[in-house]
Amino acid sequence: MSAATDALVEGVLKRDVRAVARAISLVEDGEESAAAILGGLFPHGGKALVIGVTGPPGAGKSSLVDRLTFLLRRSGKTVGIVAVDPTSPFTGGAILGDRIRMQAHATDEGVFIRSMATRGHLGGLAATTGHVMTVLDASGKDVILLETVGVGQDEVEVVSVADVTVVVLVPGLGDEVQALKAGIMEIADVFVVNKADRDGVDRLVTEISSMLSLSTHEGVPPEIVTTVATTGAGVPALWEHIDAFRVRAEASGRLARKRRGRVEQALEKALEDRLMKAVRSRFLPPEDLERTIDRLAAREIDPLAAAEDVLRKMGFS
Amino acid sequence: MSAATDALVEGVLKRDVRAVARAISLVEDGEESAAAILGGLFPHGGKALVIGVTGPPGAGKSSLVDRLTFLLRRSGKTVGIVAVDPTSPFTGGAILGDRIRMQAHATDEGVFIRSMATRGHLGGLAATTGHVMTVLDASGKDVILLETVGVGQDEVEVVSVADVTVVVLVPGLGDEVQALKAGIMEIADVFVVNKADRDGVDRLVTEISSMLSLSTHEGVPPEIVTTVATTGAGVPALWEHIDAFRVRAEASGRLARKRRGRVEQALEKALEDRLMKAVRSRFLPPEDLERTIDRLAAREIDPLAAAEDVLRKMGFS
Repeated sequence: MSAATDALVEGVLKRDVRAVARAISLVEDGEESAAAILGGLFPHGGKALVIGVTGPPGAGKSSLVDRLTFLLRRSGKTVGIVAVDPTSPFTGGAILGDRIRMQAHATDEGVFIRSMATRGHLGGLAATTGHVMTVLDASGKDVILLETVGVGQDEVEVVSVADVTVVVLVPGLGDEVQALKAGIMEIADVFVVNKADRDGVDRLVTEISSMLSLSTHEGVPPEIVTTVATTGAGVPALWEHIDAFRVRAEASGRLARKRRGRVEQALEKALEDRLMKAVRSRFLPPEDLERTIDRLAAREIDPLAAAEDVLRKMGFS
Repeated sequence: MSAATDALVEGVLKRDVRAVARAISLVEDGEESAAAILGGLFPHGGKALVIGVTGPPGAGKSSLVDRLTFLLRRSGKTVGIVAVDPTSPFTGGAILGDRIRMQAHATDEGVFIRSMATRGHLGGLAATTGHVMTVLDASGKDVILLETVGVGQDEVEVVSVADVTVVVLVPGLGDEVQALKAGIMEIADVFVVNKADRDGVDRLVTEISSMLSLSTHEGVPPEIVTTVATTGAGVPALWEHIDAFRVRAEASGRLARKRRGRVEQALEKALEDRLMKAVRSRFLPPEDLERTIDRLAAREIDPLAAAEDVLRKMGFS
């Protein structure tokens, strides 16, 4: 490890805000120093409670995360927020969102916020999100709030391995939006019906209950909490349910299993990333790749057979 | 290739509906015969025009796809529909959707519809979607409509390599929903403002235009078409714009580049899948994996270092 990396790791462990920001940028961009930084920080982590917050667009996840943050800060807990934002790097959407939210917590050193676009990450979204959480965890944050829109294979995978997964729904969205809840139903530890000042709250709560009665949830079925994130109503109750879930999950061994799931996912993503890099540099360099694409485009070979050819070259077939 | 697989490939090439359905099931489930089926079919493909249709939940993509299908059928074209449905296998959402849509085209052998859940696919969503399209393409479908909700890294990747990518938006959704368009802005070849009987159509069209004027689209900027999918208004114009885009993209070489992108994506997904299987069977068998997860959970090693260990065992480090 270089002296600079060493100093950066030290800075993160000492909870220096600028060191945290710098370390996150380096691991997000997949810089050469990323492996050393993560290697230096990972042993000091594992203490933060990771709360995943997911749900369809427009459900009010960001407001809810902000309200939870204020609540946690009042009880003296430090908070890291990782918002997986489905906007594009080229429009700067994620960065803009960051700035707006930053203002609310700007003077508070106990809160660190990072928005991430879902595209253009080396090694994929799940890998990068995991790295950012490793930095926040090592920097001593008590709680990490991981916010992601509840659609998309990668996005659901990421949030499904949080310590506690909160699924946010709202009454009065269209059928297609409501259909989304099916995909995230099985990963919910706590349900939130947000915008509970709208019509249709009771119906939505009943719908969720009846769906839950058909499913085979491990242990106690998820609680359903109603909130109005814009006013903060119901947010203290939400926190109580999250904390109660954590206590039960700790006792039952479920929390330990979730954390094993999280490190397994991190290992898998790291392996995929490193393997593909090794393959591209040694067994499928740009000129071979172009030739293979030519043959695929001409339909002389199919993708699975082309993949087998590469495996053979590697001695794996 | 076994005689049964041989017969199945023959059946698909002869456009037998039952053979197509069977082949799709086998490749979706990643059955052992999948590689042989795809190997037999891939050389006969590359003729279908692949139209990706994406946009936020509630934008009316399914209705639009249905309307386009009726239009294409009236002009004698055969149609395959692949709907990537963000619901869970355990609720059966995708299957239910399939059945409802099937009824509209039930007596028409010129239409084949397959809905796919976004979770639980061996080798990932993109790989499976590609395989299903290979079968439909080889079965002689003139047009393949690939419908997916425009959120999620994998989902956007899949639709971005269609021959023509149609992005569907609607007026009057919340800010957070509208923010989604940023992520899919750059992949749009044609924009649809659907539900054009609602208020706010002009404003949305203006917003899209001004976003487009800031972006650096290759060639002619995307057209913006207004539709009302429930009545079919604007759908013929949408088809004209899609076809005009295809003609231009064919002439400019852009279509060929998109198709190269599609086979490259297929190769990459096949490689990832096969590599991870090879690694799991030879270098990280279940007992080693469990031991590595133990060490990760105990924070004795970090995920990147654990991945490097596996690479070293493979002789790649």
